[in-house]
Amino acid sequence: MSHSGSWLDLADDTGFGLENLPHGIFSTADRAPRTGIAVGGWVLDLAGATGDPVHTTGTLNAFLAAGPPAWAALRAQVTDWLTDPAHRDHVQPHLVPRADVTMHLPVQVGDYVDFYSSRHHAENVGRIFRPGSAPLTPNWEHLPIGYHGRAGSLAVSGTPVVRPRGQRKAPADDLPTFGPSTRLDIEAEVGFVVGVPSTPGTPVPVGAFADHVFGVCLVNDWSARDLQAWEYVPLGPFLGKSFLTSVSPWVVPLAALEAARTDPPARGTAVLPYLDDAGLRWGLDLTLEVRLGGELVATPPFDQMYWTPAQQLAHLTVNGAAVRTGDLFASGTVSGPGRDQRGSFLELSWGGAEPFALADGTPRTFLEDGDEVAVTATAPGPGGTRISFGEVTGTVVPALEVAPPVTG
Amino acid sequence: MSHSGSWLDLADDTGFGLENLPHGIFSTADRAPRTGIAVGGWVLDLAGATGDPVHTTGTLNAFLAAGPPAWAALRAQVTDWLTDPAHRDHVQPHLVPRADVTMHLPVQVGDYVDFYSSRHHAENVGRIFRPGSAPLTPNWEHLPIGYHGRAGSLAVSGTPVVRPRGQRKAPADDLPTFGPSTRLDIEAEVGFVVGVPSTPGTPVPVGAFADHVFGVCLVNDWSARDLQAWEYVPLGPFLGKSFLTSVSPWVVPLAALEAARTDPPARGTAVLPYLDDAGLRWGLDLTLEVRLGGELVATPPFDQMYWTPAQQLAHLTVNGAAVRTGDLFASGTVSGPGRDQRGSFLELSWGGAEPFALADGTPRTFLEDGDEVAVTATAPGPGGTRISFGEVTGTVVPALEVAPPVTG
Repeated sequence: MSHSGSWLDLADDTGFGLENLPHGIFSTADRAPRTGIAVGGWVLDLAGATGDPVHTTGTLNAFLAAGPPAWAALRAQVTDWLTDPAHRDHVQPHLVPRADVTMHLPVQVGDYVDFYSSRHHAENVGRIFRPGSAPLTPNWEHLPIGYHGRAGSLAVSGTPVVRPRGQRKAPADDLPTFGPSTRLDIEAEVGFVVGVPSTPGTPVPVGAFADHVFGVCLVNDWSARDLQAWEYVPLGPFLGKSFLTSVSPWVVPLAALEAARTDPPARGTAVLPYLDDAGLRWGLDLTLEVRLGGELVATPPFDQMYWTPAQQLAHLTVNGAAVRTGDLFASGTVSGPGRDQRGSFLELSWGGAEPFALADGTPRTFLEDGDEVAVTATAPGPGGTRISFGEVTGTVVPALEVAPPVTG
Repeated sequence: MSHSGSWLDLADDTGFGLENLPHGIFSTADRAPRTGIAVGGWVLDLAGATGDPVHTTGTLNAFLAAGPPAWAALRAQVTDWLTDPAHRDHVQPHLVPRADVTMHLPVQVGDYVDFYSSRHHAENVGRIFRPGSAPLTPNWEHLPIGYHGRAGSLAVSGTPVVRPRGQRKAPADDLPTFGPSTRLDIEAEVGFVVGVPSTPGTPVPVGAFADHVFGVCLVNDWSARDLQAWEYVPLGPFLGKSFLTSVSPWVVPLAALEAARTDPPARGTAVLPYLDDAGLRWGLDLTLEVRLGGELVATPPFDQMYWTPAQQLAHLTVNGAAVRTGDLFASGTVSGPGRDQRGSFLELSWGGAEPFALADGTPRTFLEDGDEVAVTATAPGPGGTRISFGEVTGTVVPALEVAPPVTG
């Protein structure tokens, strides 16, 4: 590995070397929300360093809409600034310690779509939610199943996770009851941020993924499994998901992920031509880590995902629907074949029936008030470096006491 | 009925009398998109008449965010202007013939939610899609089932309906095929537009509906039933809906609907307290009319809806999810008990198995290229007047010829 290219003091094992350069929105006591790039322990203030008003809007949207040539030009500029010591005097005043910044949601999201593209996850959920039926529905190997989530409930990493209240009905109950969710869960996912919009009526071919998508973030799709199980037939998840979806603050450009590209796993079922991704290598060799209270509890491998993000984008636009700048689509829970590779507590505890043990022996199933969950990820970068995706975190706080509903 | 209160020449049977005053966004050759109010055959240019920049933004959002006191003050002002001849010289230059305006999507929608609140519709669909099972799922009488739709595919009435392409698999087929939908349908719905946002984590009580919702429009949730049937298990409708959802241009204020409020139908199953709407009278006595090529084919009665919009809003926020200004939630297809009261061709033709006949004897099932569909609605206004909701229309055009998907 080598970060010797920079005049900045970068740790050998930083995941935020010159190979990464993720974009995000930050503020400090004296800097209003603006665009920055993470490098080592600093944030480069792009508003200040470039003087370009596109970086002062408080979201990445305007820059993302500018498209791949603008993305590449900025990346080259920043790489040059951080490599050539001649630029040090210009750049230095615009470097802010990462410890001093507050991060914000990086994009204003128009539509948020959540897919369901891990075969291991889908099979696990099918076995847990629909025992006695085939774990995969007949459509699963033919299309990347997805649904729309609530864009207004997206929030940046660190936002408290207020335990949601709602209806749930256990099979043994005659009637539904109302109260705080007792099966609060995570879903460790990878998200894809659209930069260049598509044209309504014109599908995005599977090979045009990088013409539209700017980069990659982490997503925790918090889920209330008791609410979800009661509500989701026939129109899908709704309140079981819509209370909060957390997003990591740094969006890693696709340009940083060339070394992470890989062939997806072999598929046993042939796909229709619009989903044919032979040779495209849009599998991504990310390794996620899920920590509960700081303790590693799962290591989901993204390179095992059945459907790639290029197929997801091709599918969601094949009916003529367009994507807009800032749209976010997520992979669905990332789970691998191993028990310690499952990206949800639903799976780690097999629906609560098989608690898993923390290092001190404490048995755990779903989330308890006070739990802190952090999802991180890294991917191989060029020259043996690692690309970090930072983290998406959240701490569970008790359900709010609310006054009895007013009906008059 | 009486429109004698106005110095304007209003037809006795106009649905756009002083009792209505719906808001929309219009433009003309020399007026950029701005807020207007429909009255008789005119549009009152609020940007010009009030001089208030809130009406020049090209969406209703900023005005809707101002809340009920601002809504009431403007309504009183416009009523006074159009009633007292002393204001004629001020108002007259700001009246534009409706025939001369182009209408636009009235709001910038953050999240779009579609409910499923007609019992007759849900039972019909259950019988058609899931023969042999109970027509209603066990949760249906306990909560207003809903799901998120694609906000980016919302478009104003008149937008062409390009027949979507996608995957579908008939039960007799071994494998899915790809192509233009052969079961393109409508869903005649009523939509509710949020003005005042709610606070994340704080549910909106069922009695606070009018503190948040500004008004009502019509929605046609175009649906590709073959795509939908293949994709919707287990996460709900996705591409079968996301290609286009059309919205009527005029938003009728709740203030215009006092005479239309009614008790919803009796419910056989008790609801949880947060959904208890006893005495609230948020049923609405709207009568929809669905026309195919100008011919009336269905008359769905909105007063038969099982769940009211007040219950829908209470439900969608009970888990802590917030609504934002401009959010739109729709009722789901409006169907009554009669065969000629069904708000979709799926139901009118019983899944295509029982074609219905046009006046000239032509048997019809799903939409054909060239079909024009118009959904209109009226409701009782004060003093025997009628409140018109205008119309939401669309004409089906053939699927676009697209180049074979590029995979490299």
